[in-house]
Amino acid sequence: MTFGGTWRGTSGTPVSAIGEFGLIERLRAIAESDRIRGEPPNEMLLLGIGDDAASLRTRSGREILITCDTQVAGRHFVPEWISPRCLGERAIAVSASDIAAMGGLARAALVSLAVGPETSVEDLEDMYRGMTARLNRFHAALIGGNISGLDSGLVIDITLIGEVERGKAIRRNTGQPGDILWVTGSPGAAAAGLAIVKSLRGKPVPPEAEEVVRKYLTPTARLREGRALGVSGAVTSMIDLSDGLIGDIAHMIEGREAGIVLQEESLPIGDEIQRAADILQRPAASFLFGPSDDYELIFTTSPAGAEQALKAIRGVSNVPVWPIGQVVSGGAGSVMLADPKGDRRPISPHGWNHFSDTGPI
Amino acid sequence: MTFGGTWRGTSGTPVSAIGEFGLIERLRAIAESDRIRGEPPNEMLLLGIGDDAASLRTRSGREILITCDTQVAGRHFVPEWISPRCLGERAIAVSASDIAAMGGLARAALVSLAVGPETSVEDLEDMYRGMTARLNRFHAALIGGNISGLDSGLVIDITLIGEVERGKAIRRNTGQPGDILWVTGSPGAAAAGLAIVKSLRGKPVPPEAEEVVRKYLTPTARLREGRALGVSGAVTSMIDLSDGLIGDIAHMIEGREAGIVLQEESLPIGDEIQRAADILQRPAASFLFGPSDDYELIFTTSPAGAEQALKAIRGVSNVPVWPIGQVVSGGAGSVMLADPKGDRRPISPHGWNHFSDTGPI
Repeated sequence: MTFGGTWRGTSGTPVSAIGEFGLIERLRAIAESDRIRGEPPNEMLLLGIGDDAASLRTRSGREILITCDTQVAGRHFVPEWISPRCLGERAIAVSASDIAAMGGLARAALVSLAVGPETSVEDLEDMYRGMTARLNRFHAALIGGNISGLDSGLVIDITLIGEVERGKAIRRNTGQPGDILWVTGSPGAAAAGLAIVKSLRGKPVPPEAEEVVRKYLTPTARLREGRALGVSGAVTSMIDLSDGLIGDIAHMIEGREAGIVLQEESLPIGDEIQRAADILQRPAASFLFGPSDDYELIFTTSPAGAEQALKAIRGVSNVPVWPIGQVVSGGAGSVMLADPKGDRRPISPHGWNHFSDTGPI
Repeated sequence: MTFGGTWRGTSGTPVSAIGEFGLIERLRAIAESDRIRGEPPNEMLLLGIGDDAASLRTRSGREILITCDTQVAGRHFVPEWISPRCLGERAIAVSASDIAAMGGLARAALVSLAVGPETSVEDLEDMYRGMTARLNRFHAALIGGNISGLDSGLVIDITLIGEVERGKAIRRNTGQPGDILWVTGSPGAAAAGLAIVKSLRGKPVPPEAEEVVRKYLTPTARLREGRALGVSGAVTSMIDLSDGLIGDIAHMIEGREAGIVLQEESLPIGDEIQRAADILQRPAASFLFGPSDDYELIFTTSPAGAEQALKAIRGVSNVPVWPIGQVVSGGAGSVMLADPKGDRRPISPHGWNHFSDTGPI
């Protein structure tokens, strides 16, 4: 099964037939036609595709945010699982998620492609349509990029540029002891979706597993939510969930004197994860604790700021938001899991692999 | 021969032994240690490596420039020819050249790597040292990036961010009929260097070919010159020479009513190119007219502005600057070559391949 459609592959026009400059013109036309709806997507854009460099202006009192992420065929995506258009959407979402976690607005993207000579031009066009569609949703523009040859395969590198009010970018490691730790959405759903897709071997996705597969293949990127949280002023730190819940929480506390305690009974396990776990006959918790690229948000607030943060997120989204733990003093940079009796044990982001058959809880 | 040193390759620590996060820490240490000389490299930098996104501020009255370029092992570089450190310098120069051609200052870089599991950590560290050394020369910082796995090989994608006074970015296609066309340096030297390196098959570089080999493997990137030209106000258009003299000049005139006429007798053929041509028993002009990634600058001035532009470039550099032609009205977007008698014939950027044994002149 291929989510969202199929690849033309060798039945399309190979990129080698039209060359680098031919391909640039075709992709540029897509980036531009998607913008010809009237207004430029946002007021930062001065100069897009077509010169030695693109150009952006910043509004006074703003700073720019910049991040890049790579999708390698066979590693970050499997072409047999995801259509070119959905892959384009996914690639943008993955990078946009980093801007969301800073509390910023996504404004522009550069797309660097390295493609094998057999790649179909029409597939790449569909991928670009997915990219520009997703960027349009954010009022962001595709402003540049680069195309290179590769012996085979596909490497997509996205640079995303955002903006945020000067001094208001939300850092990942600034939560203070006493702060509450929150997570949006259904952490582990992407891991469950990946496990389902891996198990299919060409069979169609069972209807009860469709939700996790969709969450894995076309994550949302919580830009509206991240922005609302940033503007609220109630968030003390934020990171995006791109490695796995425990791994990303560990990044929030690395090298610090404080620690983070997760309340075992507060950790959400979505119904859709449970359904996938039932199909796969695996404990649902193994998805929650292992690697999972959900592109949700993890953030902290003071207890007093919690209501304001929740109100901000409710103003723009109905994504669930879960309080799952707390920043504590003297934790020596570690993540701990507390059982209902209050006993704490350290939990390692890499530990789950060693006992993934039963899961850590 | 390997220019600038050798690769540890399999005698080094494979990246698979320390993993993505281990590698990020090692490379981050290099990016940061190279900055611990006192001042931050420039006042744009707010937040470097270590969070979801990097952050930059812009000075009032400035706009930001952004460009990306990819180096793929076996396509843009051959590891057997160039040391990791020189490769790092080269990768930065290639992207910086685009900022130079806009008349801007290079300020920050993101480095996205996709590496095979056998790649040596120490080689990547040397490559980063080359990148940061070159960035330091420009007062620019390495502020972020991404590391991905690849089945084998090495793909380096550099995003370079620059700045320029608002509205002062120099476009590539704004030269006007009557303007003089100029080129810096020794166009074709990189092509000659590439041809020499290809011919060696492991033998050492003959001393009389060292200059072209160096120009090919470690181009300069004309940032000081591009900046001085931009600030002078005397330049009407500019592009960097990254594809080949004729191909890049064609970009300056594409789709326009005007054309560009090159004066055959004005085209420079450097002594170092002639020496390489003698070794290879090829006409020197074949290097000038074919693909060549020299990372020199091609620009136009009005006849009245020529002196001011030359004075600006002389203030920062002793690179040779050659007047090689003129923008003409009614050229229908074509590049023409005029012989000493004044007869013009169109010249195609892609045409040289068909008669590279004798060259087009």
